[in-house]
Amino acid sequence: MIKQITSLTNQTIKDLRALHMRKEREATQQFLAEGLKIIIDALDQGFAPQILVYGKDADHHPLLERAIDATLKANGQVLEVTREILEKVARKENPQMVLAVFPQLTKRLSDIDPKTNDVWVALEQVRDPGNLGTIIRTADAAAIGGVILIGDCVDPFSVETVRATMGSIFALPIVKCTREEFIADRARWTGSVVGTLLTAQHDHRSAPYRRPTLILMGTEQSGLTPDIAATCDTHVKIPMRGRADSLNLSVATGIMIYAASGL
Amino acid sequence: MIKQITSLTNQTIKDLRALHMRKEREATQQFLAEGLKIIIDALDQGFAPQILVYGKDADHHPLLERAIDATLKANGQVLEVTREILEKVARKENPQMVLAVFPQLTKRLSDIDPKTNDVWVALEQVRDPGNLGTIIRTADAAAIGGVILIGDCVDPFSVETVRATMGSIFALPIVKCTREEFIADRARWTGSVVGTLLTAQHDHRSAPYRRPTLILMGTEQSGLTPDIAATCDTHVKIPMRGRADSLNLSVATGIMIYAASGL
Repeated sequence: MIKQITSLTNQTIKDLRALHMRKEREATQQFLAEGLKIIIDALDQGFAPQILVYGKDADHHPLLERAIDATLKANGQVLEVTREILEKVARKENPQMVLAVFPQLTKRLSDIDPKTNDVWVALEQVRDPGNLGTIIRTADAAAIGGVILIGDCVDPFSVETVRATMGSIFALPIVKCTREEFIADRARWTGSVVGTLLTAQHDHRSAPYRRPTLILMGTEQSGLTPDIAATCDTHVKIPMRGRADSLNLSVATGIMIYAASGL
Repeated sequence: MIKQITSLTNQTIKDLRALHMRKEREATQQFLAEGLKIIIDALDQGFAPQILVYGKDADHHPLLERAIDATLKANGQVLEVTREILEKVARKENPQMVLAVFPQLTKRLSDIDPKTNDVWVALEQVRDPGNLGTIIRTADAAAIGGVILIGDCVDPFSVETVRATMGSIFALPIVKCTREEFIADRARWTGSVVGTLLTAQHDHRSAPYRRPTLILMGTEQSGLTPDIAATCDTHVKIPMRGRADSLNLSVATGIMIYAASGL
């Protein structure tokens, strides 16, 4: 059954708005995804919304009907709301007319088997939501095993990150671990563990990429920490010959993923 | 001489604030750059600010002194302003304590000689300021010839784009042209003109990259228009084998620049 909500003080609406806060997302293990396209991407990958929200002046596109049916079938809630509520929940003017709440699906290192894919990527302390989302999108395009987040990273389930994934947030495992957990798990990575360091001697194209390859990328500001850099068996550098002495993290990671994948 | 300004109604402050509008940037051929780092990057590349603005509670770092000296020496204005003015000019809370106005330097196609570099990149109708800035940064890192903007692109001199370039906006030629101008200039590109198309048969690594190579990338949403695609002598595709059927434009362009440069 579709419920109509017109009041901003409705508890479900309050809960939805709270999902802009990382603390709330972590407490509820839920996240917000905006726009019909990403919701359909989720359905195509077998994930139904727990809550689907649409504006009462939304076009009744067949894809919206499909999202409504799928949500109800999965015992989710479907809410028809006013434009004002939509703007508040989306935190912007001219919001997307449809948004949804999904459960967060993350894994632990022990949940994944490195041998199930040729290439994986691990990011230490990635800070920028757009970079993380873009990297998840690239990882999906190249069909690598998953994205491992080491240490204090930006939340993969923030609205900005999810938007930048363009639906890829549902496509591959997102693994979270501490630095210590990563170091303890290192022995299971029996292929090449390749870290990028600006001071490396070898360029990224000459690295051995024995399978399964794990690519390790550091933070936007200062690269890999010494402890994590020390877990690599090869350090490489993407050559730069201009004035800029670094690349954007999502560009550098894209180049590394394609180099390691041989694509 | 350093001028102190405390009033938001000061005409220079009004002019600075107006530089957030593309129309004003184009009329004055000026742009805003935020932060001491990018200003020092500009000085290192031989560009002095026309106007330098700093908060009166800014640290008197030796680099700020250097920026002040260089601006005065180039007959620019130096303004010491209140925090309130800085916030209004930067359009945000906690703004950078230093910002500057520089002249826009763009070129026409006829100003550049394709033979002066092995690789160039042209973007048709790029829409996202962050993507354009990141591409300019990558182009600088790889030391390619320049970035050519075809048709109705986002402004390379918006605050967001300049920020994403990380100082590379000063490092290489930015060329603007219409579609018609590009087509008319095509004959001067005597090496490979390589366009990326999702429907291409060949992958990006198997393309001939005869010098000077021009890489052509289309808009985020729909790629190259047929007219521009028709100017290419090779169409390539970056292979994708996952669920995502496209890459972020700045990532795709980074992969292409590195492939064409053989870096």
